[in-house]
Amino acid sequence: MIAIFDSGLGGLTAVRELRSLLPGASYIYFGDTGRVPYGTRSRSTIIKYALQDMRFLLEVESRISAVLVACGTVSSTALNVLQENFDLPIFGVVEPAAAAAAAATKNGHVAVIATSATIASGAYERELKRIRPDITVTTKACPLFVPLVENGFTGGDPVTKMVCERYLEPVRESGADTCILGCTHYPLIRDEIAEALPGVTLIDSGAEAVKAVAPYCPAVEEKCPPRYFVSDDPEGFERFASLLLGDDWQSRAELVDIEKY
Amino acid sequence: MIAIFDSGLGGLTAVRELRSLLPGASYIYFGDTGRVPYGTRSRSTIIKYALQDMRFLLEVESRISAVLVACGTVSSTALNVLQENFDLPIFGVVEPAAAAAAAATKNGHVAVIATSATIASGAYERELKRIRPDITVTTKACPLFVPLVENGFTGGDPVTKMVCERYLEPVRESGADTCILGCTHYPLIRDEIAEALPGVTLIDSGAEAVKAVAPYCPAVEEKCPPRYFVSDDPEGFERFASLLLGDDWQSRAELVDIEKY
Repeated sequence: MIAIFDSGLGGLTAVRELRSLLPGASYIYFGDTGRVPYGTRSRSTIIKYALQDMRFLLEVESRISAVLVACGTVSSTALNVLQENFDLPIFGVVEPAAAAAAAATKNGHVAVIATSATIASGAYERELKRIRPDITVTTKACPLFVPLVENGFTGGDPVTKMVCERYLEPVRESGADTCILGCTHYPLIRDEIAEALPGVTLIDSGAEAVKAVAPYCPAVEEKCPPRYFVSDDPEGFERFASLLLGDDWQSRAELVDIEKY
Repeated sequence: MIAIFDSGLGGLTAVRELRSLLPGASYIYFGDTGRVPYGTRSRSTIIKYALQDMRFLLEVESRISAVLVACGTVSSTALNVLQENFDLPIFGVVEPAAAAAAAATKNGHVAVIATSATIASGAYERELKRIRPDITVTTKACPLFVPLVENGFTGGDPVTKMVCERYLEPVRESGADTCILGCTHYPLIRDEIAEALPGVTLIDSGAEAVKAVAPYCPAVEEKCPPRYFVSDDPEGFERFASLLLGDDWQSRAELVDIEKY
């Protein structure tokens, strides 16, 4: 049983990858829709929220074998705190995505786009340089991408295209040949990002993290139906999830008072 | 002493009005920057947050004579709960703005633009029809406006212009001659909104609310320097406040753990 959590809806892109890569895996999901976005908050607030998210998941489900932090912001600012506080394998999106990008780049120049908090943490840059010290890294915070996705400006929306053009111009001009989508919301506007970065290889951090967590998924376990929990607006989450997961969405979202944890 | 609170930065537009209308008034401000935005959250969450905001203000300052809820979302979904729970004059932005709009319209058709929660509450529409039953009301939720303002897409930004064009087209086509800016963030993109609504009279809900609270400001009181409190990122708040208030900004923002209240 894998537990996946995110600040909101974005982690569902990791769920989609998990369902595709490990169709037999059991999982539960928590989206902190009552406190999204995390990416513009301070480090201490993000840590507090992440600890609450973990405590909730471990209380609601006793069979968790590994945790996937499907949130770029938590992965880059609070992962070590979580790993120190909880005694089970906890995976973030930073290390797997950095490894994939370091392997993919041909000119040794990787870009990272993510929320303000993730970029400010420097986590992707540190990890890329740890793997390959001679690498060049260009970073760019894109704080409007999460609100654009959460408010439905997807599917080739001209507003999103214009914001992509603005945010990604320095990335395009940097000469990076590979770009990490350092936030799990971003695959939902992947086409718009790709259009603004022609010829650049895009690395989906959530998808890479799913590959990392896969070995920790018990080979033999009774498959349980997935459960989804949110801290606000279950109906909005259900609409979004059914749009994203299509026929794979046959669940309801359960409401959680996350501040109790 | 007036207490003013908002979900984030937007209420500072009401502070600006207060300073201009009542230069001698003392006030304190709380911006819930750790939990912004309120406007996409459920009613029960908004009520919980608003009660916490009030408890904090009354604990930190004993001389409060009136409260200005400079948040369209709280004003439209939680004002009566606050008035039932606290024994002092509490003003929201809905009634004053509705009264000003009803007085301003010549063709009896008023539009309201605000966050999703405010529009869903129906508060402006109810109040407009209470004042003038024959009025026609057109409403439009603009959920991306707050993130645009909070992320600096102001000052004639083409992205904001495009979003205004999109959101406000049905308002323009409705024939309304008056439009209430039902969220205190919106005056920060007033020019862009005006451009998309040529010939339409714009009503600033925060400014109207300041006029309503003015009589409750003690005529004689020792003027205290204003205090500003936020629940996250005081530096970001200070940058924004000094931009908005100019030379009038000579304060610091103090950090509050709002979930304690």
